[in-house]
Amino acid sequence: MSELLPRALAFDVFGTVVDWRSGIIAELREFGRAHNAHRDWAAVADTWRAGYAPAMDRVRRGELPWTKVDDLHRMILVELLEAVDLLSVSEEEIDHLNRAWHRLDPWPDAVAGLQRLRRRYLITTLSNGNVSLLTNMAKRAGLPWDCVISAEMFRRYKPDREVYLGCAELLDVRPDELMLVAAHPSELRAARAAGLRTAYVTRPLERGPRRPPHPVEEGEFDIMATDFLDLADKLGA
Amino acid sequence: MSELLPRALAFDVFGTVVDWRSGIIAELREFGRAHNAHRDWAAVADTWRAGYAPAMDRVRRGELPWTKVDDLHRMILVELLEAVDLLSVSEEEIDHLNRAWHRLDPWPDAVAGLQRLRRRYLITTLSNGNVSLLTNMAKRAGLPWDCVISAEMFRRYKPDREVYLGCAELLDVRPDELMLVAAHPSELRAARAAGLRTAYVTRPLERGPRRPPHPVEEGEFDIMATDFLDLADKLGA
Repeated sequence: MSELLPRALAFDVFGTVVDWRSGIIAELREFGRAHNAHRDWAAVADTWRAGYAPAMDRVRRGELPWTKVDDLHRMILVELLEAVDLLSVSEEEIDHLNRAWHRLDPWPDAVAGLQRLRRRYLITTLSNGNVSLLTNMAKRAGLPWDCVISAEMFRRYKPDREVYLGCAELLDVRPDELMLVAAHPSELRAARAAGLRTAYVTRPLERGPRRPPHPVEEGEFDIMATDFLDLADKLGA
Repeated sequence: MSELLPRALAFDVFGTVVDWRSGIIAELREFGRAHNAHRDWAAVADTWRAGYAPAMDRVRRGELPWTKVDDLHRMILVELLEAVDLLSVSEEEIDHLNRAWHRLDPWPDAVAGLQRLRRRYLITTLSNGNVSLLTNMAKRAGLPWDCVISAEMFRRYKPDREVYLGCAELLDVRPDELMLVAAHPSELRAARAAGLRTAYVTRPLERGPRRPPHPVEEGEFDIMATDFLDLADKLGA
């Protein structure tokens, strides 16, 4: 990577910092047991997640007014529960299940890596997740963010460039002083196009054992790391 | 106070969490020594601070476009340096001195009190200071915020009610589930008018030894505390 180190690191969260799939499957299974309902909960989790990008895209295209991720997640969940014939579920139970996204666990290296990185860099979230989701998650999981920055603050969703540039502006750094850390090549490409530096972290299990990560070209990003400890090594933290 | 405890605590910062006056005087004195300039630096600090509310009011009235506090502080500082005949100061020196507001120390009870409160409540800043200022300050001083919320996110300054209500919305709590903690009665009154709960904390030295705090009526706020440890006691944290 270029010799100039970044001043701040902004982290994508779902999949990059936390293992959404294991957490969502576990909560869906618990919900299933409570309702004595046997379903393919891993498939339900994958469908829930798969509905997320198209829902955000509807907001991005202006087909939906600004809607935060908690509410998008809930819209998808309600349809999913209907699709698997679970109709007599209370609003409170749906709310609780929907907040499973607030209760996700970090990947095993994440907290230790962030603690090291934080000593040298300002570290923030830069997630499409809403502020309360990210804050509740960080509090529960012990994620040591210096601040919590969300797409909600800009009322735009990544990969819109306004989110990357808005983050740099809030942190009072130039775009090229800010590095986006993510496990998703498409998002890193959008951040790079907005002028940010980029660090790709592999999360081979994000989408489950049978769906490998999207391919990345050698040298495409400033840093390629196997996890947050390797990222800390490579950033001298 | 009413029996229902708040779910989240939002803290005013300048004067409530950090001792702006001692910190600014110390940095101005250091600046004066570096420039071999003898001035009444305590008076300069007080004038700098006194220029802050009128500058924000110009933004609030729409006479100035949105301008963050770092930039308002700098506008006031440049005028002040001219007024005390310090004209040959570089832009970099002015920038550094201006960021003295990022380097303020907390009151002695603040970090320990916040650590206790954080175990039971979600705690956030709710300051007119911009995000980078609040984040740099927290990182340096070890303020354990769960998240950093700033008026900058709403492009409105306190005491505009949009700031108090916007904070509740970002945290996904009702206004009456959010408690503003501040050493300034006028701000607490504005928060109460917006539907928030209120905790007054006395900071008798905020404006220096000869300028006592503004008067408060008995029972005017939900909680009256002598410092953050007393506040933690009163909130069961």
